[in-house]
Amino acid sequence: MSDTKKGRILLALTGWAPDVWTQELAKAAPGRQVTLEPDGETDPSIEYAIVWKQRPGLLSKLPNLKVIFSLGAGVDHVFADPDLPDVPIVRVVSPNLTTRMSEYVVWQVLDHHRLGPRYRAQQASRTWYEDRDQKAAADITVGIMGLGELGRDAAAKLQVMGFAVTGWSRTQKQVEGVTCHAGEAGLDAFLASADIFVVLLPLTPDTHEILNRDLFARMTKRGPLGAPVLINAGRGGLQNEADILAALDEELLSAVTLDVFQQEPLDPESPFWSHPKVTITPHAAAASMPSSLIAPMVEQIDAFERGEPLLNLVDRKAGY
Amino acid sequence: MSDTKKGRILLALTGWAPDVWTQELAKAAPGRQVTLEPDGETDPSIEYAIVWKQRPGLLSKLPNLKVIFSLGAGVDHVFADPDLPDVPIVRVVSPNLTTRMSEYVVWQVLDHHRLGPRYRAQQASRTWYEDRDQKAAADITVGIMGLGELGRDAAAKLQVMGFAVTGWSRTQKQVEGVTCHAGEAGLDAFLASADIFVVLLPLTPDTHEILNRDLFARMTKRGPLGAPVLINAGRGGLQNEADILAALDEELLSAVTLDVFQQEPLDPESPFWSHPKVTITPHAAAASMPSSLIAPMVEQIDAFERGEPLLNLVDRKAGY
Repeated sequence: MSDTKKGRILLALTGWAPDVWTQELAKAAPGRQVTLEPDGETDPSIEYAIVWKQRPGLLSKLPNLKVIFSLGAGVDHVFADPDLPDVPIVRVVSPNLTTRMSEYVVWQVLDHHRLGPRYRAQQASRTWYEDRDQKAAADITVGIMGLGELGRDAAAKLQVMGFAVTGWSRTQKQVEGVTCHAGEAGLDAFLASADIFVVLLPLTPDTHEILNRDLFARMTKRGPLGAPVLINAGRGGLQNEADILAALDEELLSAVTLDVFQQEPLDPESPFWSHPKVTITPHAAAASMPSSLIAPMVEQIDAFERGEPLLNLVDRKAGY
Repeated sequence: MSDTKKGRILLALTGWAPDVWTQELAKAAPGRQVTLEPDGETDPSIEYAIVWKQRPGLLSKLPNLKVIFSLGAGVDHVFADPDLPDVPIVRVVSPNLTTRMSEYVVWQVLDHHRLGPRYRAQQASRTWYEDRDQKAAADITVGIMGLGELGRDAAAKLQVMGFAVTGWSRTQKQVEGVTCHAGEAGLDAFLASADIFVVLLPLTPDTHEILNRDLFARMTKRGPLGAPVLINAGRGGLQNEADILAALDEELLSAVTLDVFQQEPLDPESPFWSHPKVTITPHAAAASMPSSLIAPMVEQIDAFERGEPLLNLVDRKAGY
């Protein structure tokens, strides 16, 4: 069935079972050969690599590799390879992934805004207490760190729910209805603007542990929630975890939702699990359907072989 | 300061402290007299009553009562008075109340869709488990019972989040993007259409305990969540509470969120508090700011005295 004139695909995954991905590739690209481990590590027929935390050095040994496709919206896991060959890297942009991330962001913002943790504690103690003096969404500003595809879609949906939205990104962006700040020069104004911070930044050397005590101390707004809420749905490497715990104790932060951690799975001994101000989800913010990720990659490969340009290319210099 | 030519307002509340409401009336209607208990129960200067569960018989003794204003979107608490005088009844319609109810509906729909209860149980047991094969909002249909102001706004926002939406109401409605069913004739088709049911119905003799085992058994869809989810943000009188518990045990329902109960506050001995498939909020779905409710009523009173028609009138025959 396979067509040997079509470039072979290497599927290079660490930590994920390959079965569902090979099945989706068989469905989406029935005429194309797929390899899990390259034959002799220098297989000249491999032209494309679909990767999630590929084994370092693996890709550099492939003489005819033409394109690397990341199985995540973030590409820090690709750049973790010190021997990364100099070929184009394509990030996944999938409406399914974007929609699911916005579901997660709106869900968690509403859970803090609408006092989810408090009502669950009341339920556990069989306490009926209603505080009628609650703020509406319009009284709350959500600050989004990272205004790529994901940040912009979340900003639009948060506005539909009634929230005011501000944003921060490395380079200046224009987003409808959003007060946008940029770079180190715009950071203090951004950190003074919001009650709930949603982090969707790429992980690069510049953003490594950007979520630290210094940043939390610069969040100056003390709105209806008493201190800012932090929601990190980006990457664990963005956060200094000891600083988050300290900031909760010091009430620099009132509560956090963490979908990502420096080490995943999270250590069963981690103090985060039982902290009353911490909501944990298991890197599930945008756990997209495999079919919705693989199909666009196969379409891009087919288009590339017809001579069309690649879309959603990673900027190697910026690191995302 | 008060102008005796302007009709006096009676504030008739049961179970709510009056202070915040008298303060808001003083701000919104500084020239108008406000009474908590009528003088001799036949005070002829009282022309308007703002009520929440008014004492039965109280209003019928007022010879010059012209309009009754309900402090809730639902008016069942007004009709609970067997001696209700035959004057126009105005329901509260406040953008603040509508927006807050939609916040609640989207929050709770997302909490079930995005596995909130499961992740909280995992956090409590320090378990990291991510199931990647999750449905997106587009794979889920939310069925809204009650397509008034609140139901229509919730329907629009759920669609923005990606959900398919169906609706059911007493009389046929047209709502953009929503497959609308009506009356007993349309009930089976509606109950077969959705994975998550959101109840925003008025409480009338027709809807009393409409949420019962027979209704749950007619919910035939067995979608991604295994069995339907029920979210009641309407009135406690809509639900048969023993039937809800039985339906959870029989897996006719997979989970419920209840903001309202037959008796509030909920009895500390109620089995709902500790049921693992039950989320409880303390009648807080649309706990609006008092200012946002009082100001539109005072505007209506002023307009009425200028000879303008009353808005948002209750249909006494339909009971809502």
